[in-house]
Amino acid sequence: MRLSELAEATGVSVATLKYYQRAGLLHPGTPVSRTQASYDQSHVDRTSLVRALTEVGGLSLTQVGAVLEAIEEPNRGSLGVMAAAAGATPLPVTPVDDTARAQAWVTARGWRVQTDDPLVGSLAVAWQAAEQAGIDLDEIRLDAYADAVEDIARVDLDSVPHDPQRAVRRVVLGTVLLDPLLATLRRMAQQDLAIRQSGQNVRA
Amino acid sequence: MRLSELAEATGVSVATLKYYQRAGLLHPGTPVSRTQASYDQSHVDRTSLVRALTEVGGLSLTQVGAVLEAIEEPNRGSLGVMAAAAGATPLPVTPVDDTARAQAWVTARGWRVQTDDPLVGSLAVAWQAAEQAGIDLDEIRLDAYADAVEDIARVDLDSVPHDPQRAVRRVVLGTVLLDPLLATLRRMAQQDLAIRQSGQNVRA
Repeated sequence: MRLSELAEATGVSVATLKYYQRAGLLHPGTPVSRTQASYDQSHVDRTSLVRALTEVGGLSLTQVGAVLEAIEEPNRGSLGVMAAAAGATPLPVTPVDDTARAQAWVTARGWRVQTDDPLVGSLAVAWQAAEQAGIDLDEIRLDAYADAVEDIARVDLDSVPHDPQRAVRRVVLGTVLLDPLLATLRRMAQQDLAIRQSGQNVRA
Repeated sequence: MRLSELAEATGVSVATLKYYQRAGLLHPGTPVSRTQASYDQSHVDRTSLVRALTEVGGLSLTQVGAVLEAIEEPNRGSLGVMAAAAGATPLPVTPVDDTARAQAWVTARGWRVQTDDPLVGSLAVAWQAAEQAGIDLDEIRLDAYADAVEDIARVDLDSVPHDPQRAVRRVVLGTVLLDPLLATLRRMAQQDLAIRQSGQNVRA
């Protein structure tokens, strides 16, 4: 198909497709003349993926590039996969001075996360921001959240294919793309629980 | 304190503070002369909150305005609080044609969510994006995630203060600001689980 047809098939404008190509996020088509190239299903799939990562996953194009790189790198161990997934995510990056409390909590929890892992910094930032906004969030409550999140991680890892190449793709994309899905489920569950607790009856 | 001192106290530039004021996100100071105003702790708190919502919560300034409005509106029932929290969040908004599958799942689950609730559309978008990216996500797996997320919602609602005004603030901010914290915990739990499953020993 032509570029204009790729645009039609994916709902992404020709200008944006050209931009994806310049940024190295979309591979070139097969040249059919000096000015035209032909595109196939692999271009449709890739374009849909880039779009999902930006629009649903909330990633910048730079972060999309990092995700694609992680997906395409073969022979990465399971830890490398996790690190790639964690690195390619729109988490807070503002550094905080004090990560000691976050580190102490992680250690007490027994989670095997390296002390120099950027995730510890992300946790410290998010924890501090929540408390500064007046949200009570002590270690006990954090543990209650962590208990539930471990169940989520178990579902995440249960569904990882054995084939390493597909495993990387599944973990990286699943981590990024399911964040908004889990956030949506959280809001639905809050609503349902609030209705039950208030004893109100609302027809679904 | 002066505007320049407010900037110093919060780490937000004078230009940005003026922008917050023009956008109605930061209340005016008390005039002390024709060209100067005096600012107090309430301005420090508000500025920190706006900053947390944008930098940690990932909200646009328009969304920050919606959150602040929800926080300041008194006498909102618990359902109104939930709706405000859900509405003031950076969730996918691209409409999809088919929300029937998402709606059917919500109904089967027994969650009391209105059929016209935008959350159903958000779920449909995120679900479709995940599947298009090649992530297996059937109703059974979605239920497994939902079980864990219900535990999270229970912790969310356990910590809501009885005072309605404070309750709104807690729920709205907690929903927005704890999304990135939960996303960070998810990545840590994945890492820990991957290490345990692979039998590797890594010193924490």
